[in-house]
Amino acid sequence: MDITDLAKRLKTGERRALARAITLVESGREDHRQKATELLDTLGQEKQALRIGLSGTPGVGKSTFIESFGCLLTGLGLKVAVLAVDPSSARSGGSILGDKTRMERLSRDPNAFIRPSPSQSALGGVARRTRDAVALCEAAGFDVILIETVGVGQSETMVADMTDLFILLLAPAGGDELQGVKRGIMEMADVILVNKADGDLKATATRTCADYAGALRLLRKRPQDPEDFPKAMTVSALEEEGLQKAWEEMQALADWRRENGHFDTRRADQSRKWFEEEVRLGLLARLERDPEMRARLAALGDRVADGEASVAGAAADMLAALKG
Amino acid sequence: MDITDLAKRLKTGERRALARAITLVESGREDHRQKATELLDTLGQEKQALRIGLSGTPGVGKSTFIESFGCLLTGLGLKVAVLAVDPSSARSGGSILGDKTRMERLSRDPNAFIRPSPSQSALGGVARRTRDAVALCEAAGFDVILIETVGVGQSETMVADMTDLFILLLAPAGGDELQGVKRGIMEMADVILVNKADGDLKATATRTCADYAGALRLLRKRPQDPEDFPKAMTVSALEEEGLQKAWEEMQALADWRRENGHFDTRRADQSRKWFEEEVRLGLLARLERDPEMRARLAALGDRVADGEASVAGAAADMLAALKG
Repeated sequence: MDITDLAKRLKTGERRALARAITLVESGREDHRQKATELLDTLGQEKQALRIGLSGTPGVGKSTFIESFGCLLTGLGLKVAVLAVDPSSARSGGSILGDKTRMERLSRDPNAFIRPSPSQSALGGVARRTRDAVALCEAAGFDVILIETVGVGQSETMVADMTDLFILLLAPAGGDELQGVKRGIMEMADVILVNKADGDLKATATRTCADYAGALRLLRKRPQDPEDFPKAMTVSALEEEGLQKAWEEMQALADWRRENGHFDTRRADQSRKWFEEEVRLGLLARLERDPEMRARLAALGDRVADGEASVAGAAADMLAALKG
Repeated sequence: MDITDLAKRLKTGERRALARAITLVESGREDHRQKATELLDTLGQEKQALRIGLSGTPGVGKSTFIESFGCLLTGLGLKVAVLAVDPSSARSGGSILGDKTRMERLSRDPNAFIRPSPSQSALGGVARRTRDAVALCEAAGFDVILIETVGVGQSETMVADMTDLFILLLAPAGGDELQGVKRGIMEMADVILVNKADGDLKATATRTCADYAGALRLLRKRPQDPEDFPKAMTVSALEEEGLQKAWEEMQALADWRRENGHFDTRRADQSRKWFEEEVRLGLLARLERDPEMRARLAALGDRVADGEASVAGAAADMLAALKG
């Protein structure tokens, strides 16, 4: 594989080159991993896309929202990439993005690029690959990168740690159900969008939105954001209502953060965290990569299992070997 | 601190020596950690206690159960240690064992030893310290070690990974509420005990028990266990009903596993896993322990944050330094 050529084609925005590059960074093979690092180093980072995290549990109409919102953005002349992060997809049978047909219009749009979640079950691996995919999309000239995740705890934190804005998509609900949204996830949200504000559900959506707005006021203030953020709004992805307004709010918040330096500070913090995580993953990978180390780990494990060596003693031996 | 003396006193079953030894293994200080390893090596493993994991969400009457069940065992002439594992205790305000007054009778019993959860929030740290505490209790001559945990996902798996039997304590419930017990936790249970089978709740408890028994039959068979396991039973910790029977069932299962070699196989597998986890924790600890490495990590992190170094490049530098 010619990395220089791939990088060149990717920079011109060729979608097949982008898809191929993402497959490369998603690969678990060591030689692919090295080529991926080479590619990322060749590309560098020129453009800064707006990275938007989007979380919502199944049933809130997330695919419809991504379709409508994505088309709105491409209609404004923006290039939009959609990446899915779903660490559970290997087991649960795939994220909604596995089913591109549900975003038929957007997936045919030449200014949109949709990529399902890599089928890895380890959160660390998914995070690394998604961060790399974001870098590739930026190099390919995308303006907005939507990173969607299912509402399953840790994956939200991971997505918030790699995006500039975090959007929580919710369905209209009775007052009791508000409790179902975890406080930690509420605290991450910059904008809460209550979807399905249409037809019979319109009144419920408006009430739900007011409830969430009240809940947001009770959460701690964020000194770095304008006073009216985080905020809750209603949208209808189906009738394409409120999406333009939602986009304006997202831009307003991003602009404010840019002007006040918080945008760059957040990215710097994210890069630092990412670097530390890479070091941790790299350290642990030594146990797997080197056949000699793998054999030693297995042999020492056998001795521990047979009661011939103590856990602490065998671990000390192994760690000494990993140092050499 | 004289480790030889501490080991000697611990082996005679002196409770203060045991308490002090556990405090030593729970310490985060590096010199304490070294002394703890020395102590564990000195002690070796002579006796094999029966290690029982016990899980139950707040409200199922867990402290009453531990009190009644513990007193039953000491009444049979057995020495009983109770350890709590609650990774969330640092935040949520402590496990039930923080409140020893709720187990007044057992805590005054000379053949019982009760130890609250260490106040660490990292699951890995809690696991390591609890495993060490189990080894100390075995060295101190305890016959039964109860390891109790709150029903919060990962901590159950951790406790199941360090015990010989896993008991799930549940409250009488309507049919709908059965759904609230996660399938993964049901699958870990060797015995389900439906508590509060007394007074007004007796009939409900019997019905709930039958429902769980039905649910257990639907789960995959375990070829290594007798046909009627896993099983569900009712108990009343308050009226001390069914506890003797429950203990007989636990012993029957443990004896079967011992005779068929599965008991030792399970312990061997657990030791191997524990060893591998120790190696992983030890590798990651290198980043924290060595001041030079910590300084380098911080400096490289700054360069990444400032955009002067790429994440992959800086991580490679750091990993090379950690090898030397």
